Amino acid sequence: MNQILSNYKVLIEALNYTRAGVLITDPNLEDNPIVYANKGFVDMTGYTLDEILGENCRFLQGLETAASDVDKLRTGIQKKESVFVEILNYKKDGTEFWNSLSVDPLYMEEEDRHYFIGVQRDVTERKLVEEKYKKSVAEVKALACPIVPLVNDVAVIPLVGEMSDQRFETVFNEASDYIVKTQTKTLILDVSGLTKLTNYDIEGIVKLEAVLSLVGAEMYLTGLSSEMAVNAVQLNDRFATEIKAASSLKVLLEKLI
Amino acid sequence: MNQILSNYKVLIEALNYTRAGVLITDPNLEDNPIVYANKGFVDMTGYTLDEILGENCRFLQGLETAASDVDKLRTGIQKKESVFVEILNYKKDGTEFWNSLSVDPLYMEEEDRHYFIGVQRDVTERKLVEEKYKKSVAEVKALACPIVPLVNDVAVIPLVGEMSDQRFETVFNEASDYIVKTQTKTLILDVSGLTKLTNYDIEGIVKLEAVLSLVGAEMYLTGLSSEMAVNAVQLNDRFATEIKAASSLKVLLEKLI
Repeated sequence: MNQILSNYKVLIEALNYTRAGVLITDPNLEDNPIVYANKGFVDMTGYTLDEILGENCRFLQGLETAASDVDKLRTGIQKKESVFVEILNYKKDGTEFWNSLSVDPLYMEEEDRHYFIGVQRDVTERKLVEEKYKKSVAEVKALACPIVPLVNDVAVIPLVGEMSDQRFETVFNEASDYIVKTQTKTLILDVSGLTKLTNYDIEGIVKLEAVLSLVGAEMYLTGLSSEMAVNAVQLNDRFATEIKAASSLKVLLEKLI
Repeated sequence: MNQILSNYKVLIEALNYTRAGVLITDPNLEDNPIVYANKGFVDMTGYTLDEILGENCRFLQGLETAASDVDKLRTGIQKKESVFVEILNYKKDGTEFWNSLSVDPLYMEEEDRHYFIGVQRDVTERKLVEEKYKKSVAEVKALACPIVPLVNDVAVIPLVGEMSDQRFETVFNEASDYIVKTQTKTLILDVSGLTKLTNYDIEGIVKLEAVLSLVGAEMYLTGLSSEMAVNAVQLNDRFATEIKAASSLKVLLEKLI
């Protein structure tokens, strides 16, 4: 062990530099109070050491804190087991923050007794990005299958961008539902806005055509590039025989309407 | 200060429990080697203490590590200033991880010399969600404005889901560009798939109509619910006078085609 580490002050400094909140509580005292808190905890929560020492940690909880997370912590402490939760906590000024909290029992041989050490990280930023990501995924889903009802029982689905397995599933389900519900006779799948067509997409198109024909609707495919067409025919035997295609939506509509 | 904190072992334990990686380096020795590493650092990187102690931290860097991040660290250490970077690092087994790293000079008065304390957190999970979120936002943008060219110089934009300011900006730009590029005479904005119409959307529709009429195209609005119509007319004087609307796309197309 290096000389620097036998220096008490350096260790305290090191603990303060971690920016993680570090707490030690003493379950041998009434209500398991905090007996040590580092600078990271003070910075993260806005409480002063005077306000923290001697208190039970529950002052971090608030209105929106999930009872199940609190139960998990309580049970772990009762059983002297390690617990990990991501719990909604509150700073002194009332601001919510997501606390990635681990609590571990710490057995000190010399004293023959247990302490608990709690380590917390503020993961609010990650939680917010996760939420925004979930919303965005829902938005993609909502946008994945715009169905445009035209005249004469003809509807068009214009696909744009890049398909993913998930997005194709959405198109597949919504298009079938729509046809059954509206009794539309002809569905045109326009792929001119797609950047590429994967094997999965090609299979999906063939499958969609089969389902639609079972419920009495005809499917046309428009906007296939020559490269996409060659690829599709090579990859799937049924593509050439079962898919009715037209070079463009305009050409097809002039025939149909 | 509580008695427990004068216990050297408890402090070492506490440092190991933080799960943050904590390093102390000694710039008074040649090549500023690591003189202390905690358990968090060992767990995060996969190196043993034997492999770490006495080495300079640069073994964490690899092929994809940004040179600018390395420069920032080097400059901070030279000037004895605090540095914060989010840097791409490598574990012993070659796995990449995003390291949220702060390096601070640590002046020890008794010894009248500086050390550096480095604290690292693995933020790979957050970085990955951020990347997925960015991709998803790009996907939403790509899906925001499907333009369906129909017969007789008529094109339809079916809007589905919920508009945001951003999404409306996309529709506005892409629709204007499209009209100018293709010389389409009539653009139909079908809003039957929208869940609501905000004040911003209503203004945007009026603005779009004005721009299109300047470039010689006519705009029609279809699929407005009666509730949306009442709201729009109350909020914007020009809505009733300048927007040509039809109850549905089908009704309008039967007239136009």
